[in-house]
Amino acid sequence: MNASDESLNSSTDARTLPQSAQQPRQRGGSLESRLLHGLLERLGFPPIEFTLWNGERILAAAEPVCRVRILERGTLWSILADPQVRFPDAYSEGRLEIEGDLVRLLEEVYHASGRGKPSALGRLLERLHRPRLNTLAGSRQNIHHHYDIGNEFYTLWLGATMAYTCAYYPEADTPLDAAQAAKMHHVCRKLRLRAGESVVEAGCGWGTLALHMARHYGVKVRAFNISREQVAYARERAAREGLASQVEYVLDDYRNIHGRYDAFVSVGMLEHVGVANYRSLGEVIRRCLGANGRGLIHSIGRNSPAPLQPWIEKRIFPGACPPSLAQMMEIFEPWELSILDVENLRLHYAQTLRHWLERFEAQSGRVRQMFDEKFVRMWRMYLAGSVAGFTTGTLQLFQVVFAPPENDDVPRTRAHLYA
Amino acid sequence: MNASDESLNSSTDARTLPQSAQQPRQRGGSLESRLLHGLLERLGFPPIEFTLWNGERILAAAEPVCRVRILERGTLWSILADPQVRFPDAYSEGRLEIEGDLVRLLEEVYHASGRGKPSALGRLLERLHRPRLNTLAGSRQNIHHHYDIGNEFYTLWLGATMAYTCAYYPEADTPLDAAQAAKMHHVCRKLRLRAGESVVEAGCGWGTLALHMARHYGVKVRAFNISREQVAYARERAAREGLASQVEYVLDDYRNIHGRYDAFVSVGMLEHVGVANYRSLGEVIRRCLGANGRGLIHSIGRNSPAPLQPWIEKRIFPGACPPSLAQMMEIFEPWELSILDVENLRLHYAQTLRHWLERFEAQSGRVRQMFDEKFVRMWRMYLAGSVAGFTTGTLQLFQVVFAPPENDDVPRTRAHLYA
Repeated sequence: MNASDESLNSSTDARTLPQSAQQPRQRGGSLESRLLHGLLERLGFPPIEFTLWNGERILAAAEPVCRVRILERGTLWSILADPQVRFPDAYSEGRLEIEGDLVRLLEEVYHASGRGKPSALGRLLERLHRPRLNTLAGSRQNIHHHYDIGNEFYTLWLGATMAYTCAYYPEADTPLDAAQAAKMHHVCRKLRLRAGESVVEAGCGWGTLALHMARHYGVKVRAFNISREQVAYARERAAREGLASQVEYVLDDYRNIHGRYDAFVSVGMLEHVGVANYRSLGEVIRRCLGANGRGLIHSIGRNSPAPLQPWIEKRIFPGACPPSLAQMMEIFEPWELSILDVENLRLHYAQTLRHWLERFEAQSGRVRQMFDEKFVRMWRMYLAGSVAGFTTGTLQLFQVVFAPPENDDVPRTRAHLYA
Repeated sequence: MNASDESLNSSTDARTLPQSAQQPRQRGGSLESRLLHGLLERLGFPPIEFTLWNGERILAAAEPVCRVRILERGTLWSILADPQVRFPDAYSEGRLEIEGDLVRLLEEVYHASGRGKPSALGRLLERLHRPRLNTLAGSRQNIHHHYDIGNEFYTLWLGATMAYTCAYYPEADTPLDAAQAAKMHHVCRKLRLRAGESVVEAGCGWGTLALHMARHYGVKVRAFNISREQVAYARERAAREGLASQVEYVLDDYRNIHGRYDAFVSVGMLEHVGVANYRSLGEVIRRCLGANGRGLIHSIGRNSPAPLQPWIEKRIFPGACPPSLAQMMEIFEPWELSILDVENLRLHYAQTLRHWLERFEAQSGRVRQMFDEKFVRMWRMYLAGSVAGFTTGTLQLFQVVFAPPENDDVPRTRAHLYA
């Protein structure tokens, strides 16, 4: 995917540059170019070429994978002060241009961040940046920010299923819609749903999984969501598909789930819950599952605890935080819920996001009409950054199956998932 | 499995007891019987009948699943003071007799312990009981205590494979040896071993898995163990089976593993490592795996952190502690090791232990000759208690597959495990 129409090959060949520019060491040049060089040095010199407003070029490696043109002095100073937030902001606002493969660029940045040491200022900014809270009211605001910007926008690129979570690719070339259906079947098989059972879903998006469970597995579903637009869409869809008697969409917070169910499922909500609320989520799960109950949580995760990339938290997903597995265990261990199965689908999410990004690019003209150029660039940066997050292992995707401790009615093996 | 030759049906029918004995409420009787009644009340009256030295009977439920005869007053007092340790001690020493199904009895006790509140004395004893440490020297002593009591003893009941860890039963009626072989294949498939690769094994028992990997997957194995008897046995076996050039057994601690390997595997050692040493174990793993490395740890676990049953720690496995999954993550998260797959095989271990217990009972005459009656009863209690631990969900069995964060060469799905 090219973020820009210009390709790398059409501009100056890196190998023809004067020797000085090919060396990581930079002695001359403006103050700004030397400071930028210092930042790149801390990052272990990712293969990215920078061009400044005055024509100066800072080239970290002989063969850059892409080129960044910074159009104003002020933009560079803001990036130097807070690169994690200001670089993507400057791109969104058109104050810098990127030539070449945006995903490759962001992969290089993620790899470099893993190698490099954060500066003192970087560490300070990390401490200053506080994700927004997920109180009942805070969660409503945070969810409204992302999910209530218009269902029509999402229909442009999510595919026919309107599933906005990691798909499952049984084969490398499974198309998006088929992979989303395969994901839902995978989840239902893991839950071993049987006709006539009851399921509660926490965070149901546009209602896709609830309808899938009702249609293919004959269960009754009560699905919770605090996004008004999503619930309205889901209700309309259930009515249209003749499943309104089997699926009830409730516009309410997961903390207000009551009653008893055979299964609990939550796909792509945990990222918005906040680690501080995991114990309460576990309490909700424990009280809503009987002795033969079982549950599944599907969430973006981390190899170790870390806050969400701060620009993503600020501009895209306020209040969000993908947990490490140890953090996820704070849901289960206080209530003795037994973990039966954990699967990491990181590379599946990279593929899903590649599919979304392709469709988003194909529809970018329409998106520009609906919003503006800044919105297009911001979402391009978010989707490309998410691909890079999953390909580089900065982000993981965990599906966790669990049951109350007394449930012995668990399958001996997982062979039934692959039959 | 009957712990005693007398069956429940051959003794007095519970239904013919005087009405007073069938009631949980106990007003009259000796001081001791009232105290025992109090203990059973705290446990929610498990269906076990007690008979005292003076003929008094304490019957918590109308239909007891088994009967306990306490032969002396002093035995009851010691049990009242510290039931978790003194009850199995009294059984081992022949100071009490059990009629009926020992596994059922222990399952009832585990269920009851989950329901009941520990007494103040119980909580005090729990704090006083400190598991033995796993320093380099401490680990040697702890391992020597259990694994160096004579290889011949273990050959009597472990089966042909001499694998002393949870087997894997593809079918409910898979025989023990086939289930142990299936477990080893399951582990090797999860590791995706390829001919010519190198594997390091931490805690190799009698060397079974190392030989299996070398024979069936064509890998070179360096296997560490601090039990002298096990290593001697394993070396002799490798020579006999013509695999000595492919498998090297090293009599040393996992902390002294050096070099680079394609895969790290540890089956049934983690229970002996101690949570305090998990970070160091993770460091060993991180430094011994290259970018395409992967690893598997197979261990008894818990739904939430808890010390090992204190009698088991005291008499059977000094220094041992099965971790919760959050505790296990202390191995991986400090080093950014990525969790790919977790499978809970709890019911497989219950089945494995049932098979071992059956064989142990069939050989108990021989074991009595090798050791004494106390040893037979102690090991019967340990094996039956372990069956009950896994059937009741007091214990779990986790297989965790992981890889360095940069390893993208991971299979898309787990279908290859079930092909």
